[in-house]
Amino acid sequence: MKLFVDRLIEQIRIKKTPCIVGLDPALERMPENWRKKQGINPESSLADCAEAIFQYNLMVLDAIADLVPAIKPQSAYYELFGSAGIIALEKTILAARDRGMLVILDVKRGDIASTATAYAQRYLPPLPARPLEADAITIVPYLGEDCLNPFFKQAIKWGKGIFVCVKTSNPGAAIVQEQKINNRYLYEIIADLIKPAAAKSIGDSGYSGIGAVVGATYPAAAQRLRKQLPHSLFLVPGVGAQGGGNEGIKACFNPDGLGAVVSSSRAIMYPHLYGSLDSNQATIRQAAVDLITQVREILKS
Amino acid sequence: MKLFVDRLIEQIRIKKTPCIVGLDPALERMPENWRKKQGINPESSLADCAEAIFQYNLMVLDAIADLVPAIKPQSAYYELFGSAGIIALEKTILAARDRGMLVILDVKRGDIASTATAYAQRYLPPLPARPLEADAITIVPYLGEDCLNPFFKQAIKWGKGIFVCVKTSNPGAAIVQEQKINNRYLYEIIADLIKPAAAKSIGDSGYSGIGAVVGATYPAAAQRLRKQLPHSLFLVPGVGAQGGGNEGIKACFNPDGLGAVVSSSRAIMYPHLYGSLDSNQATIRQAAVDLITQVREILKS
Repeated sequence: MKLFVDRLIEQIRIKKTPCIVGLDPALERMPENWRKKQGINPESSLADCAEAIFQYNLMVLDAIADLVPAIKPQSAYYELFGSAGIIALEKTILAARDRGMLVILDVKRGDIASTATAYAQRYLPPLPARPLEADAITIVPYLGEDCLNPFFKQAIKWGKGIFVCVKTSNPGAAIVQEQKINNRYLYEIIADLIKPAAAKSIGDSGYSGIGAVVGATYPAAAQRLRKQLPHSLFLVPGVGAQGGGNEGIKACFNPDGLGAVVSSSRAIMYPHLYGSLDSNQATIRQAAVDLITQVREILKS
Repeated sequence: MKLFVDRLIEQIRIKKTPCIVGLDPALERMPENWRKKQGINPESSLADCAEAIFQYNLMVLDAIADLVPAIKPQSAYYELFGSAGIIALEKTILAARDRGMLVILDVKRGDIASTATAYAQRYLPPLPARPLEADAITIVPYLGEDCLNPFFKQAIKWGKGIFVCVKTSNPGAAIVQEQKINNRYLYEIIADLIKPAAAKSIGDSGYSGIGAVVGATYPAAAQRLRKQLPHSLFLVPGVGAQGGGNEGIKACFNPDGLGAVVSSSRAIMYPHLYGSLDSNQATIRQAAVDLITQVREILKS
């Protein structure tokens, strides 16, 4: 069994980019003419809305499949439509796999140990008839150590990946994550909890799939965490729409040019909101190419 | 529109108990003879498993509907079965409503503001065709202030409830929640973030539905939080299986005997795991009666 981390790094090398695309399908962000063509209106059923977001995802996937190693669907945008939305998520995951992409499912789960085990068993094992099986998931650490370990255990057992939210990109995160305890930030204490599991799950690539979500908006934090978790893969979200800076992105990588994936969602999915005339396969592909080029320049600088 | 908090306190008064039942349906915990009768075996499809957990829930709901004011389904146990599991959750929520119970959905969501809004819009607004609409949900605060506010805003807008995980019952939580900053615990800093929204959403009952998850395992923390958030409703989970102590339970209540709901899941749902010969409507009902009596004694003491 090839580990998630090794498969991801192989894809990063083949596609020559650590950029991945977040799939956050929101009907109200889609172009009006596209919604109209799909027959979506304020009275549409949840099932019709869910099918429409899946169709939009298919357009995005077809535009970017040969360009990027992975996608990162954000669960909230699918849960919005109840069970119909989860069917759309299941179909999106299968469609991404069919196109040779890895799937990092952004669910940010976290709960007491017994429940954490249930979540981990949902998203990670490659069992038959598990349509939501992902290659990696995101989790939150507020409930502490005994709530992280079941996720680590399942990930190591099945060769999958876990990204723990350590230092997130949003401005309000400081009140929790940047609290100082004995001269160390809380996010460093969280990183300590990841270290043992990461150390014992290093793949052939030299990296571990037990990693961290690290926002590009705080370069100093990224530098500190890069040193603290040298073998962990970082998931760097919100590049583009959330305004992650170049310096922060660079700080998430090791000198070997590896160690992180950089995710952009809105700026790729909805180019018409960022200056393009329309959002279609051509403009979405161009937005992905632009991101890839931009990140390549940052890593070269 | 009657607020969630007022409806809940009304139900607590009518049913004379602050006990609620957690619905965490796990096939492997159900009695073997019951699983057999449902035709569930290791080869069963996700849809069949999901239907079986819904049937088990129905048995529990029918056993307890007239006894307790609310149920608390834990999302992980439904997500385990993908979209089929979410259908089971939707049906469970509708069945609970039909039986006059309130629904506190334990999803422990938490994400950046835009995603938090998507989550809040999923679970809280009483829009038509929203089968996952709950009366209240649980959220986690690791991502900080700007990630809590969208949930508070939607809850206040729709008269619903939010329980922020402040001090959870699990032993590993201390490494995050009990870090000390300037002589205050991190969980107190989190409680500060809840206070303004709670203060401006107090209902006729004198309480606010912007509340906190507080474990019964730490009486001193519960006392501190009870003073800090006098008007907030507390959700006290894990009584029974997780070993929450009497002193901790009592500390979550105000002198008026109100202010908290006490949740038990496994000890009610699976009495055969706790000394009964079987788990059926009669033994489940008896387990609920026992919990209600036990909590009544604690509050009287």
